[in-house]
Amino acid sequence: MFRIEQLGEPKFKSPLQLSTVRGDKIFNFIKDSDRLVLDLSLEHYNQILHTGEEPPSLEKAGPRQDIFYDPKKVTAAIVTCGGLCPGINNVIRGVVMALHYFYGVKRIIGVPYGYEGLNPEKGHKLVELSPDNVKEIHQFGGTFLGSSRGGQDVSIMVDTLEANNVDMLFAIGGDGTLKGVNAIGEEIKKRNAQISVVGIPKTIDNDIDLIDESFGFETAFDVASPIIRDAHNEATGAYNGIAIVKLMGRDSGFIAASAALAMPVVNFVLIPEMDFSLEGENGFLKALEARLVRKKHALIVVAEGAGQHLFEEKSTVKDASGNIKHSDIGLFLKAKIEEHFADKDITIKYIDPSYIVRSAPANSGDSVYTNRLAYHAVHGAMAGKTKFMACKVNNQYVYIPISEVTKKRKKIDLEGEFWFSVLQSTGQPFFMG
Amino acid sequence: MFRIEQLGEPKFKSPLQLSTVRGDKIFNFIKDSDRLVLDLSLEHYNQILHTGEEPPSLEKAGPRQDIFYDPKKVTAAIVTCGGLCPGINNVIRGVVMALHYFYGVKRIIGVPYGYEGLNPEKGHKLVELSPDNVKEIHQFGGTFLGSSRGGQDVSIMVDTLEANNVDMLFAIGGDGTLKGVNAIGEEIKKRNAQISVVGIPKTIDNDIDLIDESFGFETAFDVASPIIRDAHNEATGAYNGIAIVKLMGRDSGFIAASAALAMPVVNFVLIPEMDFSLEGENGFLKALEARLVRKKHALIVVAEGAGQHLFEEKSTVKDASGNIKHSDIGLFLKAKIEEHFADKDITIKYIDPSYIVRSAPANSGDSVYTNRLAYHAVHGAMAGKTKFMACKVNNQYVYIPISEVTKKRKKIDLEGEFWFSVLQSTGQPFFMG
Amino acid sequence: MFRIEQLGEPKFKSPLQLSTVRGDKIFNFIKDSDRLVLDLSLEHYNQILHTGEEPPSLEKAGPRQDIFYDPKKVTAAIVTCGGLCPGINNVIRGVVMALHYFYGVKRIIGVPYGYEGLNPEKGHKLVELSPDNVKEIHQFGGTFLGSSRGGQDVSIMVDTLEANNVDMLFAIGGDGTLKGVNAIGEEIKKRNAQISVVGIPKTIDNDIDLIDESFGFETAFDVASPIIRDAHNEATGAYNGIAIVKLMGRDSGFIAASAALAMPVVNFVLIPEMDFSLEGENGFLKALEARLVRKKHALIVVAEGAGQHLFEEKSTVKDASGNIKHSDIGLFLKAKIEEHFADKDITIKYIDPSYIVRSAPANSGDSVYTNRLAYHAVHGAMAGKTKFMACKVNNQYVYIPISEVTKKRKKIDLEGEFWFSVLQSTGQPFFMG
Amino acid sequence: MFRIEQLGEPKFKSPLQLSTVRGDKIFNFIKDSDRLVLDLSLEHYNQILHTGEEPPSLEKAGPRQDIFYDPKKVTAAIVTCGGLCPGINNVIRGVVMALHYFYGVKRIIGVPYGYEGLNPEKGHKLVELSPDNVKEIHQFGGTFLGSSRGGQDVSIMVDTLEANNVDMLFAIGGDGTLKGVNAIGEEIKKRNAQISVVGIPKTIDNDIDLIDESFGFETAFDVASPIIRDAHNEATGAYNGIAIVKLMGRDSGFIAASAALAMPVVNFVLIPEMDFSLEGENGFLKALEARLVRKKHALIVVAEGAGQHLFEEKSTVKDASGNIKHSDIGLFLKAKIEEHFADKDITIKYIDPSYIVRSAPANSGDSVYTNRLAYHAVHGAMAGKTKFMACKVNNQYVYIPISEVTKKRKKIDLEGEFWFSVLQSTGQPFFMG
Repeated sequence: MFRIEQLGEPKFKSPLQLSTVRGDKIFNFIKDSDRLVLDLSLEHYNQILHTGEEPPSLEKAGPRQDIFYDPKKVTAAIVTCGGLCPGINNVIRGVVMALHYFYGVKRIIGVPYGYEGLNPEKGHKLVELSPDNVKEIHQFGGTFLGSSRGGQDVSIMVDTLEANNVDMLFAIGGDGTLKGVNAIGEEIKKRNAQISVVGIPKTIDNDIDLIDESFGFETAFDVASPIIRDAHNEATGAYNGIAIVKLMGRDSGFIAASAALAMPVVNFVLIPEMDFSLEGENGFLKALEARLVRKKHALIVVAEGAGQHLFEEKSTVKDASGNIKHSDIGLFLKAKIEEHFADKDITIKYIDPSYIVRSAPANSGDSVYTNRLAYHAVHGAMAGKTKFMACKVNNQYVYIPISEVTKKRKKIDLEGEFWFSVLQSTGQPFFMG
Repeated sequence: MFRIEQLGEPKFKSPLQLSTVRGDKIFNFIKDSDRLVLDLSLEHYNQILHTGEEPPSLEKAGPRQDIFYDPKKVTAAIVTCGGLCPGINNVIRGVVMALHYFYGVKRIIGVPYGYEGLNPEKGHKLVELSPDNVKEIHQFGGTFLGSSRGGQDVSIMVDTLEANNVDMLFAIGGDGTLKGVNAIGEEIKKRNAQISVVGIPKTIDNDIDLIDESFGFETAFDVASPIIRDAHNEATGAYNGIAIVKLMGRDSGFIAASAALAMPVVNFVLIPEMDFSLEGENGFLKALEARLVRKKHALIVVAEGAGQHLFEEKSTVKDASGNIKHSDIGLFLKAKIEEHFADKDITIKYIDPSYIVRSAPANSGDSVYTNRLAYHAVHGAMAGKTKFMACKVNNQYVYIPISEVTKKRKKIDLEGEFWFSVLQSTGQPFFMG
Repeated sequence: MFRIEQLGEPKFKSPLQLSTVRGDKIFNFIKDSDRLVLDLSLEHYNQILHTGEEPPSLEKAGPRQDIFYDPKKVTAAIVTCGGLCPGINNVIRGVVMALHYFYGVKRIIGVPYGYEGLNPEKGHKLVELSPDNVKEIHQFGGTFLGSSRGGQDVSIMVDTLEANNVDMLFAIGGDGTLKGVNAIGEEIKKRNAQISVVGIPKTIDNDIDLIDESFGFETAFDVASPIIRDAHNEATGAYNGIAIVKLMGRDSGFIAASAALAMPVVNFVLIPEMDFSLEGENGFLKALEARLVRKKHALIVVAEGAGQHLFEEKSTVKDASGNIKHSDIGLFLKAKIEEHFADKDITIKYIDPSYIVRSAPANSGDSVYTNRLAYHAVHGAMAGKTKFMACKVNNQYVYIPISEVTKKRKKIDLEGEFWFSVLQSTGQPFFMG
Repeated sequence: MFRIEQLGEPKFKSPLQLSTVRGDKIFNFIKDSDRLVLDLSLEHYNQILHTGEEPPSLEKAGPRQDIFYDPKKVTAAIVTCGGLCPGINNVIRGVVMALHYFYGVKRIIGVPYGYEGLNPEKGHKLVELSPDNVKEIHQFGGTFLGSSRGGQDVSIMVDTLEANNVDMLFAIGGDGTLKGVNAIGEEIKKRNAQISVVGIPKTIDNDIDLIDESFGFETAFDVASPIIRDAHNEATGAYNGIAIVKLMGRDSGFIAASAALAMPVVNFVLIPEMDFSLEGENGFLKALEARLVRKKHALIVVAEGAGQHLFEEKSTVKDASGNIKHSDIGLFLKAKIEEHFADKDITIKYIDPSYIVRSAPANSGDSVYTNRLAYHAVHGAMAGKTKFMACKVNNQYVYIPISEVTKKRKKIDLEGEFWFSVLQSTGQPFFMG
């Protein structure tokens, strides 16, 4: 469980001048046997003590003393897939810097426009990456390499990797991308090729299972925060002013909830995890009404995936990544509120920052995080690990098999401390319905 | 021409300890005869020289030595009307500080929710303003007093002013508000009441005639600037990526044009002043096509009022301020582009920051500007001037009769230097159609 | 070990409408027996399993079903001590909101100017706190209550608490403050008074032991980050340009190191934990020289406490908090570099942002964090816990006895992953000396 | 007066597709005879009318129909000199874009490290500039080309220009640089070479005579503004807390004064133009004392060049640009305040943002401004004008002979409206001494 697959036995000495003993003020190489338990609860510990089983644990990330590749001969490739997310360029930069400066890798290929770039039919040209052309990209949002949604034929992609003598592929992307890179890894295994595939999980929604947080997520609510602050001005600026801010969050409401907690002037947060009704004595509209009577204004933050159960007909349209396109809860909510208060003097302002959030450059927290993720991804790949992901769990950097995190998406636990803190901040009822 | 109306002869000495001579390092009182010519062109000067006429000129703003009111007995009122705009709170604060600290005014009334607050039927309560409750409001967007759109019965409003012994009313608002305050001034004159009415022009669109710039406008494109910077990331992040940013600008494209010039990665700016076609050999879509072939991405900034001539049926719906609601050019454009490139592989991202821009706090330039505007408004009112506006023309603070600036809205001169600089920056064709 | 002291048996039912079962989508009350192990390493786990000892663990933070106080009768007090740190106002606001809205506490006292405010001789007046006067303070840096350095007579302070019928004291402060509030707790115990004392650890240097991070620390390097970005412009703007940025960090270099990692254009980071020489073949100056030859510019970030061993005479001056005042390493370094390169054409720019960093408002990450800290502090106090601290360890909110974290200061582990990531980012030698 | 020198008769048709008639919605070429009067006062107008003299006027900036150079054969050079200032990169970018896209200029040379780059002995290599390598530099502070202080031998510099077939030199710099480029222009004239020299005035202090504002100045006080906002937190955070912020301003206090007006929480602004005493009944220290008694805190903003008359010995040390290095008024003030209040309980925080302000990227207002300045500079140079400057006067873009603006530095008029508005904002006495 949680064992990382290895392409083969490490055959080379790491060029890194590190240590193997404590006390010399030099960082120690990490051993594959350095592992960290996943569940911190004392209760769990006591259970384990009782049964004698080994607790679930994760492999610590970091440089290995023995590595699989001869660094001087390595060709690495980087691909970025799916929607934009703050920090992608920081990861690209970090991977390039680590390959070049730590390991002396000479050839680094940038795959343009996502997995499309690995399909020759699409006609995009591979680009050369070096410290010189990536050194300033961390200051920009977006992706230096371009991106695309959806997958390509796995066999063709592996053909392209082989044709270009790629030894390791770093794939920055979300759920779909990670599944894709895992499939590429499987195909490589079938062919007995020695290409390491590494995932760096990217989802602005923060919905990747098991890990603490995905990069870009903190920037997302950092960017959303002044938008909410000023939406509050729209709400208070009119008598019975109502402002609705729609934020990202297809299946998980982390951005909406965190932004509301970060700028605690929000009165209602609606997220996909919640079941709520508009109508009825305990419904949202009554709660909103009570708020207006009391305070003459209200600020609502709604995640794009919230309230899909309220639509009579379920959407079945899919986007290029294969996700079902949601019906627009923001406009729906606005219409329902207008209807409900048709005979009252209210003013509604609807704010949909959409792409503004995801195309921003990484903030400082995410910059630190992406640098460290990138370094760890490179160390793992050089050691010959494959189909793994570099990430942070319980505030520690670890490697996890990709297959372990793509089983389900992370959601806000409605009974957890985080959601409780959001409810405490907004003062909204526990249930509306 | 451009003469400011006076409630009566000044009867009191200004409490300000200023000077009347140059050279003593103390600011001099301004005289009503201190005027500044409006037209700077030498050609105009030579014409005037020839005809002997007096050139059009404006009264310099600033404190007068003789004032109309006994400051200790003054009751002042402030009202903010119409949509939000960065800097409203700075003006409120500035007016309160100037009244309180410079002139020792004891009673300052805040009128809640725009002109509605002057109509007792609406049930809003007047609030007391003092340095203490406004001292930090300049750091927030929105309006501390609340606002509303549209007018109220002039007679009722003057009744309210009289009932509350108001001596001077400061109205912060756009075209409609200024017309309203002028009408209030006329009614006051009819009643022979001695209430000064002062306008402080507020329009985020920067479309008030004659003046250099309206406050909040610079903040508007300052806030839009990083949104455009990041929209560029959306455009370049996909193969044939197109990003469309819709910005405010009902009848004038100043925000869109300035934002494009401030963040010169924009390829097309479309404004209300422009006549353009989508179709045809020289139409916008062909120009966009050429851009994509050359660069594989494009960034379009469109003012909300642009391209209304493209809609088959003209909108006739009006908003609460009496302005015709525009058809949505942003979504229209998106649809037309999708249609045009239906058989090509393109990606469109549509970004509509809307209220995000107007609810932001004032930037530093606007903060300096609003403070000075507020001070000048107070000096003018204390001197007994009425139905005037404090503003900046040719980089100088002046007073203008309100009636002079509400004749027509300012628009971008398509033959002027400003629009030319925008065209130089975007590289778009002079004409598209 | 790590057991929280309790004032007495809880006698009241919590007014919070929470749950005690999983699955009802309502947050569950936390039990005192809910604990989390401190050490995550599998190795440690296995050792413990072997010996059968209970592993060190911490009490989970959160609301208890049974509480010690009758909320309606509670008087709470808040005090903020020591230097400014981003997020103090957020904590004040969070504590007030939690007391008022969750528990219905009627009386909340703000202690002005730190511990001085508990000493009547100082003449400061206690202030009343309510949602109304704290609702917007989270948008400002600094402390709404004012602060002071150093302690006051413990007995006098407890007299003041008793004289004002205070039931719980929330103290926001660093190492000294926490020791102080612990001493107050001891005195209270001696008197058999039933006053809960709670610490909320505040240190911009992030040097409090055991905990993940202290609030305000992330904002600190977020504020420092653009300063470093622009210092890079100073370095590259001149031939052989050298920019030195001095950042906070008396005994621990977390801010300097994190800022350098967040804005990875830094070439050297010097921190208090490091031993380094200026002179010699492997000294800093030679390393700098090599950098200039290669790249013609260099950017150095130095923590204020770095290199104190380089001064011939140790500073013995103490500040008001009893900390030894450091000799100025920034100016010293500048002088030494000038001396070393006396015959070369170099340009040095010295940048000391000092108070700019600590007086800033909290960023979004810290805002979320401070809200949750404040809520947990209140829940713990209401439950009758005392001499404890609310904090985050291994990414989970827990309570720790104050006495456990004041034993020593947290420092950067020179053999740890964090410092290694900084060295990877800067490319500076492991040792300079 | 104010006549621009011309290298010779224009011989070529402008490649710009502009118009010569009004009404066709195409920008019109500007004629040399299009001029704007300098003094707007009606009084001046009337005087002039009386005497029949032509009023002082300035040549309108913009593209000329007939140009001096054959654009396809032009080699242009750009040099940036002196200290950093926000917006330099925007000007570089704007000049390159205008030369390349408007006029089709093929060869653009970047001169590295200021005038040093024109002295071959210094060994710096000229760089090629193109849209590709400057397209993103507007997002960064500093100068892409590097800079240096002081001049080089004029004859050598002209040799270098001739050796590289340079036809036009754009020099971005302050007073010294402008004098330098004028001297280069004189030497060129002597040699009868046909090289246009153009100044783009750069001074963060805003002290260039005649012009409205220099670029970068607005960004400067925009960057200073939150520093002042937070310094206020330092002042209020302690009992009798005093914060001192030192800002740039060698001979003119524009930054300090504007920043104080932009963030109106400042209580005292001290600028070089002011004469003030520390001691005495009306001195600064008594005024500060009164403020502390009243409000318990004070915020002082001091320009670096203020109060030089207070030092017993005048500084005579000069910097590389030949400016006398000022004694440090900030630290002096701090010491004097400490001394004065030695027996009182006060806390002083001294904040010196120094390089932080000048190395920042341009804000949106300055971005618009620098783009337009750059375009106008290029149009003027292509027309064969020389020894002129592109700038803005009375809110209009004009050309001025460099020699006219280097006669004296612009200072704040202590009797002017701007300084009066600052005094109104701070509430400080008109005189302190």
